[in-house]
Amino acid sequence: MAARGWEERCDVDAMTRDMMSQGMMPMAGMESMDMAVMQACMDACSACEQACTVCSGQGMADGTMMSCATMCMNCADMCNTMMRAMMRPMGMSMPSMMAMLDACAAMCRACMDECMKHAEMSEVCRMCADSCRACMQACMAMKEAVAAMA
Amino acid sequence: MAARGWEERCDVDAMTRDMMSQGMMPMAGMESMDMAVMQACMDACSACEQACTVCSGQGMADGTMMSCATMCMNCADMCNTMMRAMMRPMGMSMPSMMAMLDACAAMCRACMDECMKHAEMSEVCRMCADSCRACMQACMAMKEAVAAMA
Amino acid sequence: MAARGWEERCDVDAMTRDMMSQGMMPMAGMESMDMAVMQACMDACSACEQACTVCSGQGMADGTMMSCATMCMNCADMCNTMMRAMMRPMGMSMPSMMAMLDACAAMCRACMDECMKHAEMSEVCRMCADSCRACMQACMAMKEAVAAMA
Amino acid sequence: MAARGWEERCDVDAMTRDMMSQGMMPMAGMESMDMAVMQACMDACSACEQACTVCSGQGMADGTMMSCATMCMNCADMCNTMMRAMMRPMGMSMPSMMAMLDACAAMCRACMDECMKHAEMSEVCRMCADSCRACMQACMAMKEAVAAMA
Repeated sequence: MAARGWEERCDVDAMTRDMMSQGMMPMAGMESMDMAVMQACMDACSACEQACTVCSGQGMADGTMMSCATMCMNCADMCNTMMRAMMRPMGMSMPSMMAMLDACAAMCRACMDECMKHAEMSEVCRMCADSCRACMQACMAMKEAVAAMA
Repeated sequence: MAARGWEERCDVDAMTRDMMSQGMMPMAGMESMDMAVMQACMDACSACEQACTVCSGQGMADGTMMSCATMCMNCADMCNTMMRAMMRPMGMSMPSMMAMLDACAAMCRACMDECMKHAEMSEVCRMCADSCRACMQACMAMKEAVAAMA
Repeated sequence: MAARGWEERCDVDAMTRDMMSQGMMPMAGMESMDMAVMQACMDACSACEQACTVCSGQGMADGTMMSCATMCMNCADMCNTMMRAMMRPMGMSMPSMMAMLDACAAMCRACMDECMKHAEMSEVCRMCADSCRACMQACMAMKEAVAAMA
Repeated sequence: MAARGWEERCDVDAMTRDMMSQGMMPMAGMESMDMAVMQACMDACSACEQACTVCSGQGMADGTMMSCATMCMNCADMCNTMMRAMMRPMGMSMPSMMAMLDACAAMCRACMDECMKHAEMSEVCRMCADSCRACMQACMAMKEAVAAMA
């Protein structure tokens, strides 16, 4: 059922085809984009925002993890901003897309590095680090796909 | 694989059990919460944020849908705020949780009503209205579950 | 200089008059709104988001303040969502505006109560509690102003 | 009065000195940072988020400005994420700070270029373009200041 997809996540491929069929053009060149790569990147951003939000709010009693919590807050915000930007491609330019993918990957790397330090003592941190790594890789793959369009 | 869950969405049940096992308490009374209801509500908020974000950026050529776009922006923000608050239950009080669930349901209703006006001419609007309805219902179910804890 | 206002904050009165002069109507009844009250509420939301963001990231070494940090994250998100909604009044209904003002006031109260517990040991917490109180009061004043329009 | 600053904006200089006096270190090297530059950048991000939020919701009746609205939504999100990251410097690494400043500047440039196209017909667009330019310049100045620390 079509509506089902929306209950879980948006279907960027259907969305982009629908927009194009109505003569609306997202970012120049995007018609030749590999939509599966963009879908994977949006999903990874969404998952990483969620993992970082939970991780930021877990509140270790010994206070050793405050820089982890703060990294996670910044990473959750960047991932949400990145996800939304891909969902509104009419509002992006090629340079802003490339620079934001770099920024999201850099933020995910920093957060992953920090969370990995606590992976032994916190299962939430370990899972958060996994989400950060997946999101960083998805942003780099998306960047390659965008560059290939140019 | 446990980490897989994080790639899609966070597992609030595992998270809450993990926090409680470490002596951390989320919102008072939450230990008796029906976690499946909260999980469903977080998922519905995430889906509704995504649908509204896409819908806000679809850009109808005839300009008839501007109040739809603006409703969708407000609804996307409210759903994201709601989702995050449920993922950080240590940072909520009972009254703030109840009032935010009301607010999210009211915003989803307003956005659903607006998107339904355009459902005939836009498949994206129709799907967005479906997501808004699902999120509104999930917030009301969550509110009942929270009230039952008190 | 007109542009100066934008560098600090938006001028909701000018904005609303400009929109109405072009035949666009925000939320029904808003033409009789006391714009100074709405401006004060937007400013208070912006200030509270900033104070809560700083407070959430200050990272007490002894870990005693984790529920404070988590409250602040939730409060920052709610204040940002509230501020944006007032800046996009075409995308609000009367019930969603009223419910969101309630939610923002409730979240600010919870955060203020938590931050007040730490006001002795942290000047940042004391100032954050002040911002939360100001925002809560501004939301209640705004709610009265909206109710008076109906 | 100290609290007054919080009602308008946060005082990053006071905040950073306060954190350092308690032995907390933000991003490595930040003790030598020119705080006035960072304060100016945070203020510019806040102003640009507000201008873009208003501009995204103004709803031109003729539909010519949809890509402007969508650019503004993306720019508002990026500016908010950037502002928050500077307010939580414990949660940033040098590479993530640099990459996010690049991304924010790029997004502001794209939005400025788009809004300038409509500056003749919309005073809101003209003011939004001004805010985008100021924010872009503030991000570039901040990047120089961060690079000078290294």
